[in-house]
Amino acid sequence: MDIAFVLYDEFTALDLIGPYEVLAGPDSVTPHFVAASRDTVVCDSGLPIRPTTTFAELTGPDVVVVPGSSQWRAALERTELTTWLAAVHPTTTWTASVCTGSTLLAKAGILADRPATTHWAVRDVLAELGAQVRTDRVVVDGDVITGAGVSAGIDMALLLAARMWGEDSAKLIQLALEYDPQPPFDSGSPDKAGPELAAAVREGVLPA
Amino acid sequence: MDIAFVLYDEFTALDLIGPYEVLAGPDSVTPHFVAASRDTVVCDSGLPIRPTTTFAELTGPDVVVVPGSSQWRAALERTELTTWLAAVHPTTTWTASVCTGSTLLAKAGILADRPATTHWAVRDVLAELGAQVRTDRVVVDGDVITGAGVSAGIDMALLLAARMWGEDSAKLIQLALEYDPQPPFDSGSPDKAGPELAAAVREGVLPA
Repeated sequence: MDIAFVLYDEFTALDLIGPYEVLAGPDSVTPHFVAASRDTVVCDSGLPIRPTTTFAELTGPDVVVVPGSSQWRAALERTELTTWLAAVHPTTTWTASVCTGSTLLAKAGILADRPATTHWAVRDVLAELGAQVRTDRVVVDGDVITGAGVSAGIDMALLLAARMWGEDSAKLIQLALEYDPQPPFDSGSPDKAGPELAAAVREGVLPA
Repeated sequence: MDIAFVLYDEFTALDLIGPYEVLAGPDSVTPHFVAASRDTVVCDSGLPIRPTTTFAELTGPDVVVVPGSSQWRAALERTELTTWLAAVHPTTTWTASVCTGSTLLAKAGILADRPATTHWAVRDVLAELGAQVRTDRVVVDGDVITGAGVSAGIDMALLLAARMWGEDSAKLIQLALEYDPQPPFDSGSPDKAGPELAAAVREGVLPA
């Protein structure tokens, strides 16, 4: 099973590494880190990752995982990426996104009038791109699975693992990753965090 | 603020990328990806990451974050790494670990008779290395903070962010990462998953 983890400059690392850690372990999986070229990609908070292949070389992945970016507007202009997504999606078993990655699927024509989720702050953008926006953490529609913001990729990938390999396998992976979350605060959604923090995130405010 | 994210071959990516995503965003933070050399490091499920500096070059980080590895026995023999940890820890504000990373702190002499946590499957190893093993998801002891297995790094780092920058900043980061976890299954600890799955994880069984 060839799983393509998509890389591009300024993508959000955890969007991709959550699903990677859930999905890339089994011996049956060959993970590919695919980008427009083999040049090192730098994530939006500075992490440098080396692609192992390119869009031109990887033409038939079984599964594609597309991360989002804090620079999602710029990402939507990456036509090499969206053209590749449109080309490979018809033959994937699963096409997956995390966070604003769903806007890239939409731009590639994969979400036309289909239900999907995204980071809570860009739901209007996903709607403008033609998807039926859901506020769920994970949305499955046929061969497309989308996750909400950043950390939702872990939940998305566990559900995907269960669909591909069965629930017991997904539970085994969850235990190996000790995924028994205990957030020290309860501010993971705009409803819980309140309007002031939500406004700050929308405006791109970062602490310290 | 210089934050050192420690890299070594076969480390577990999510151990490090969880804390990185929580801690590396603020403008006041300069993230460093530090390894024994600048050669590309390959994680235990295949992700290639490029170090930006070396142990020889980075001598005074404010914060150090040490990930674990599924190959934790081999990691304990990385004397360049543990020697560096022992050298820089006395001047850090915080020294942090995730998963079996705490066994590396112990090997470096940082956890002697101090409370700490680790991945549930290697608690006995951490005890043999001289730490007071706790089963908590996150343990704070003075300037040392340790997290349990893999995904616990996100919880650890949010608590660390709150200590460094205040609770409101940590909540803002949590909201930006949409960290409102909804695991599709409840098998994230050995108690919840049961003895069969726990035995399988201990034996290194992977699905599919």
